[in-house]
Amino acid sequence: MNAYRDLRVALLGCGSVGAQVARLIIEQGDELAARVGARLRLTGIAVRSLDAERDVELPRELFTTDAEQLVLGADIVVELMGGIEPARALILRALEGGADVVTANKALIATHGPELADMAEQVGAQLSYEAAVAGAIPIIRPLRESLAGDRITRVLGIVNGSTNYILDRMDRFGDSAEDAMRVASELGYLEADPTLDVEGYDAAQKATILASIAFHTEVPVESVHREGITGVTAEQIEAAKHAGYVIKLLAIAERLIAADGTPGISARVYPALISRDHPLAAVHGGKNAVFVEAEAAGELMFYGAGAGGVETASAVLGDLVSAARRHVVGGPGIPGSAHADLPLLPVGEVTTSYQIMLQVRDEPGVLAAIAGILARHGVSAASVEQTAAQADEAADRTAGAEQTAALVIGTHRAREADLAATVEALRESAAVTAVTSVLRLEGDS
Amino acid sequence: MNAYRDLRVALLGCGSVGAQVARLIIEQGDELAARVGARLRLTGIAVRSLDAERDVELPRELFTTDAEQLVLGADIVVELMGGIEPARALILRALEGGADVVTANKALIATHGPELADMAEQVGAQLSYEAAVAGAIPIIRPLRESLAGDRITRVLGIVNGSTNYILDRMDRFGDSAEDAMRVASELGYLEADPTLDVEGYDAAQKATILASIAFHTEVPVESVHREGITGVTAEQIEAAKHAGYVIKLLAIAERLIAADGTPGISARVYPALISRDHPLAAVHGGKNAVFVEAEAAGELMFYGAGAGGVETASAVLGDLVSAARRHVVGGPGIPGSAHADLPLLPVGEVTTSYQIMLQVRDEPGVLAAIAGILARHGVSAASVEQTAAQADEAADRTAGAEQTAALVIGTHRAREADLAATVEALRESAAVTAVTSVLRLEGDS
Repeated sequence: MNAYRDLRVALLGCGSVGAQVARLIIEQGDELAARVGARLRLTGIAVRSLDAERDVELPRELFTTDAEQLVLGADIVVELMGGIEPARALILRALEGGADVVTANKALIATHGPELADMAEQVGAQLSYEAAVAGAIPIIRPLRESLAGDRITRVLGIVNGSTNYILDRMDRFGDSAEDAMRVASELGYLEADPTLDVEGYDAAQKATILASIAFHTEVPVESVHREGITGVTAEQIEAAKHAGYVIKLLAIAERLIAADGTPGISARVYPALISRDHPLAAVHGGKNAVFVEAEAAGELMFYGAGAGGVETASAVLGDLVSAARRHVVGGPGIPGSAHADLPLLPVGEVTTSYQIMLQVRDEPGVLAAIAGILARHGVSAASVEQTAAQADEAADRTAGAEQTAALVIGTHRAREADLAATVEALRESAAVTAVTSVLRLEGDS
Repeated sequence: MNAYRDLRVALLGCGSVGAQVARLIIEQGDELAARVGARLRLTGIAVRSLDAERDVELPRELFTTDAEQLVLGADIVVELMGGIEPARALILRALEGGADVVTANKALIATHGPELADMAEQVGAQLSYEAAVAGAIPIIRPLRESLAGDRITRVLGIVNGSTNYILDRMDRFGDSAEDAMRVASELGYLEADPTLDVEGYDAAQKATILASIAFHTEVPVESVHREGITGVTAEQIEAAKHAGYVIKLLAIAERLIAADGTPGISARVYPALISRDHPLAAVHGGKNAVFVEAEAAGELMFYGAGAGGVETASAVLGDLVSAARRHVVGGPGIPGSAHADLPLLPVGEVTTSYQIMLQVRDEPGVLAAIAGILARHGVSAASVEQTAAQADEAADRTAGAEQTAALVIGTHRAREADLAATVEALRESAAVTAVTSVLRLEGDS
């Protein structure tokens, strides 16, 4: 065996990912040394409690509660504690000391990414966070490096496994939203507080990171338009299926031209319809996938496990090996890039098409009234379908109940602001008794 | 605008990919300069004839027939001529001169990759070839870098768009092999001599490259077991569909344990069955995809355009930007890696399951005879189905024709050598009148 020099690796955190990272560093030491040209020596694992149970048997002498001390003297710091503080302070300290930093902390990168990237650039250190988006799937590196000579136009990501599991169950097994949630919870797909997942906060953090990298622009997480899946009903899923669509919670980053001609970008999260022919439609269960459209490359998709201790550890190790190779061969890392600094446009500037489901009065002139509302807002209908919602019309009529019909309107692409105003006007129209569903359609060209 | 330093880029070849690379370097000059921190200055384009028509309007003064002169003095050489010579000699000359080299030349990398990588490592230059496998899809970089801390166990690639187009037409539209070939040819999916595609030579070159990178081992292209799609019949496609499978031409790189316990690897290309639930089954038309299984990351898939001038140019530009950044920030590239040096095992050591279709004599004792043949070779049947192949038995009987039945046998996983011997024995058995189809099943776990 070659006599390799040592690189000192400090690990912060020993949860499901951290324990696997520690195990792999130890177990695959020889193989990693051959790939890196140096031995990765785990100098310590900072934890809150020395006595907590771990997923993996690890040497007890590695554990410490003194994270600050551990960070000093490390060549590479791997931060897997999660949360904002003390992770942020420890990473800044590590970078200041000249260490490279690998993190899987999406909340931190989404909120303090630019601050950390600036510090890394100042000192010539490398900050990498492949595992922060879509777990094991290599997506950050392909966006930053493989597509560095291309112009990315749109990114559509299924980046939250819990919500994809829930929507997939509703679609494939006909579960109600409540049943799907319950099963997801029982199988450990949902946190004790599922809000981060089902309200789209987790996906919004990932949308921030994807948009920042794809468009070389700082994208504050607060600027991401966010809608969760709590409003998605079994009826919507069923209607989508009938029309050849599936509903997915998408994190979207897109280049746009605003109504006034300004080029800009949008970052948003919402449940949307996509065609069953679209590659994202085949992403089932808790899997993640990121679909990328670029001017030259065309359509690409990156698919795999979006979570899981050992899966996510793979992405962390990839970053760790890259950082370690850099120590061996020299040269600074790829700096964070915000040179394009494109304006962030509000969701009203986005153009999509809508699928609108309505209950309308079943009387003459109603369709004309609805067509008039669309036209006044500059929205044109691609399809109008009357569904057989009123199975017992006769009974209703006998009882003197109001006679209604169900309509499904598919629009052509239009600006979100116009579509939203159209829906508002439909709600207020005397011809309409209820707007039962409004969904955007994504993934078309 | 910043005053960037220039990096001199020499382009060898101006076919469909080269012309797009030249166009993008020129048109996106400012954006690329901002990403790289230096301006990519195209110093010339070496071509065989100055008068040939190009896909793209380019400044005439860039063209030269003196490739050797052009290579001298370049910081980065982009080789898109194809073929072995003079591409090989020019790349060696460029590397010797200290230039980084980007190439899309799969034939050259598959046959002379180690020689070129050694030269690059000796002089501290970077050799990259993302575009050599699966066109626009980032796969080389993810394998070399993102998964550098993981252990790849298997790679299954749909890496030849022409054959995937043909098989997909047969599957989805019920085309005969001849009709699908004709349409593929009319649409420009096939070369004038389609042998490279349909006999699997192109896929074998890509299998060599994928296996070398995945397993850090030199894999000569001659060692790749290769079967093309010319033997695939509409009947096999139909039977596969009936059984829940689809037939794809797969380039496979896999870790194996030989019968004698030796750990090694296999690289092979053949048409195989995969389940319709497998993500590779949804790769339609001329698209490519590479499915990767790794110990920690689990299952990943990389999907996109496998060919096309502008699509492939995206991958070339990604490599070019990486090489250029390295010039700006310093540090050698990632060396080629053959440290693992695993033995290449013959295809006989591979374990898969088989689907075997037979015509057998329709008489007592036949099934026992067949079961005996399987058992003697250590192969166990997972399923045996008698299909209704003999619609007009009565007619046959009247005419005194021999009475036969069609059997479809699905085996459990077994060693290829045992499966092949089983098929041979079935062919020789008096109970069997014909072996009509033998296909391997891939993608199961």
